[in-house]
Amino acid sequence: MTSLPQYSDIISAAERLAGHVMVTPLLRNDLLDELSGGKVFLKAENLQRTGSFKFRGGYNAVSRLPRTALQGGVVACSSGNHAQGVAAAAAMFGYPATIVMPKDAPQTKKDRTRRLGATVVEYDRRKEDRDAIADEIASASGAGFIHPYENFNVIAGQGTVGLEICQEMAALGLVPDDVLVCAGGGGLMAGVLTSMVHNFPDKAVRPVEPAGYDDQARSHASGVLQGGNVKDTSICDAILSPMPGELSFAICRDKVGSGLTVSDEEALAAVAFAYREMRLVLEPGGAVALAAVLSGKLDTAGRCVVATLSGGNVDDEIFQRALAL
Amino acid sequence: MTSLPQYSDIISAAERLAGHVMVTPLLRNDLLDELSGGKVFLKAENLQRTGSFKFRGGYNAVSRLPRTALQGGVVACSSGNHAQGVAAAAAMFGYPATIVMPKDAPQTKKDRTRRLGATVVEYDRRKEDRDAIADEIASASGAGFIHPYENFNVIAGQGTVGLEICQEMAALGLVPDDVLVCAGGGGLMAGVLTSMVHNFPDKAVRPVEPAGYDDQARSHASGVLQGGNVKDTSICDAILSPMPGELSFAICRDKVGSGLTVSDEEALAAVAFAYREMRLVLEPGGAVALAAVLSGKLDTAGRCVVATLSGGNVDDEIFQRALAL
Repeated sequence: MTSLPQYSDIISAAERLAGHVMVTPLLRNDLLDELSGGKVFLKAENLQRTGSFKFRGGYNAVSRLPRTALQGGVVACSSGNHAQGVAAAAAMFGYPATIVMPKDAPQTKKDRTRRLGATVVEYDRRKEDRDAIADEIASASGAGFIHPYENFNVIAGQGTVGLEICQEMAALGLVPDDVLVCAGGGGLMAGVLTSMVHNFPDKAVRPVEPAGYDDQARSHASGVLQGGNVKDTSICDAILSPMPGELSFAICRDKVGSGLTVSDEEALAAVAFAYREMRLVLEPGGAVALAAVLSGKLDTAGRCVVATLSGGNVDDEIFQRALAL
Repeated sequence: MTSLPQYSDIISAAERLAGHVMVTPLLRNDLLDELSGGKVFLKAENLQRTGSFKFRGGYNAVSRLPRTALQGGVVACSSGNHAQGVAAAAAMFGYPATIVMPKDAPQTKKDRTRRLGATVVEYDRRKEDRDAIADEIASASGAGFIHPYENFNVIAGQGTVGLEICQEMAALGLVPDDVLVCAGGGGLMAGVLTSMVHNFPDKAVRPVEPAGYDDQARSHASGVLQGGNVKDTSICDAILSPMPGELSFAICRDKVGSGLTVSDEEALAAVAFAYREMRLVLEPGGAVALAAVLSGKLDTAGRCVVATLSGGNVDDEIFQRALAL
């Protein structure tokens, strides 16, 4: 296994990203505090460039690729948010980008990725191995492959979300009791945890996943990497990884708090809450941490809780379902 | 006429509001910059407490009322955003609030105002005089009347939007060439202008209004207060004042740049743009400044432009119309 990113790597990533990423606000909402009985802060990464935190890791990774090796550009696999993050970063560095995306990815994500200048290659999420397809493209074209979470620089880049959370909480004179992270492969969680362990040790970072798709929770509870999700789809497309990434698992092992799960209906209700009460647009996969708070999956009374709003690239059809609630 | 708020009054208001209002982010968007050919910054007051900048003026005004005189609480008239701002501030100070709202105000605004604990009194916008109704309630009950823009402390509070814009631009080392303000009675514009004149003199602050509802533009162009709007309604309910406020007119006279107007369709297109490209929920009246940029009403090429996103309290029916674009 390659080496694991340390806190100092996140600091370096933050320096590299300065002026290119948005320092996203940590939002509060009176009704949310009232409902939770605590102080809840929402890290609004849906307002990030390309609409999710993925631009951070994408930019950091693209910036670290050796320029001489990149005649073939960059290649990535993604349900859509990492796709846009890498495509935008590649365009900024002048590299061509090829993104391997599931056929059933939200149309808006495919459209936006193409608009950023990338070539989109579609695959069948249930029958084909996206990593193998991306590897093949990389080998054939000489492109640099940027995995969405099995990548040192991607995790270091996502860690800047955690660094900002720590800085923003410190500026408020507050210590977060729990940090809830929308978790798929675990790149964001691993980066956030590395920042939290350095700044607020002994505080819980917890993965939030779709019910039936709780490979992070089960893997960390058992101490062994586990796949075997009982569902094969969810509206939370952004976080449907088959099992935790090895890098993120190694970083988070024995350090992460117990996981939480929410149903698709609870995720949709959180999308509706963000629309009605916070004037924010979220995608379901970026709303699961908020959903965990709203649906009482965590004891929040009297506690200070941070939840990531990881992304806002939602298809109209899904957003309409939230509006209809 | 009462005295006019000065820059020092805005500084005092900012001190009073610190910790109670959100310092809203100044957002950018790659596509918007590309379309405009300039650098466009959006002051996201839709993310403010109660969903619009009105909480600033409401809180500042309520905080300045003599506590002994308030056995009757506070009374205000509003299409809905000032209503919520005053209602929230009154609740924080423990005062009862009565809000005079048009019968045809968006349902969401009436509901939210009631949820904040206020009593809502409805009137017919075309036949009745809301100020007279509010005055009568104030006289009968001994409540303190907080006008949405003919109020020294309200304007000083709204001016903190301009103060933050100036501080945020200075931190970026930038000078805004134009600041576009969604304008109804002009309280926000007067406050923003007062901040701008102090920090960036000779730069243009411009009102943006619904087409056919351009009393600000006509009044300032002619140097004489003018009503006589040719339309009697618009989906931009937040900014449908019959004519500029006298206080704001006196503050802005000979200092404000030429006004811009947008159609309801252009405002809706801006609501759709904010949803699709910025993951933000706007109401049409809070989107007219963005609409002016998107529809090319201002020469933005090579220029640095700030536009206020004044509010996000939109009814589902109107939001659906934007989604359908």
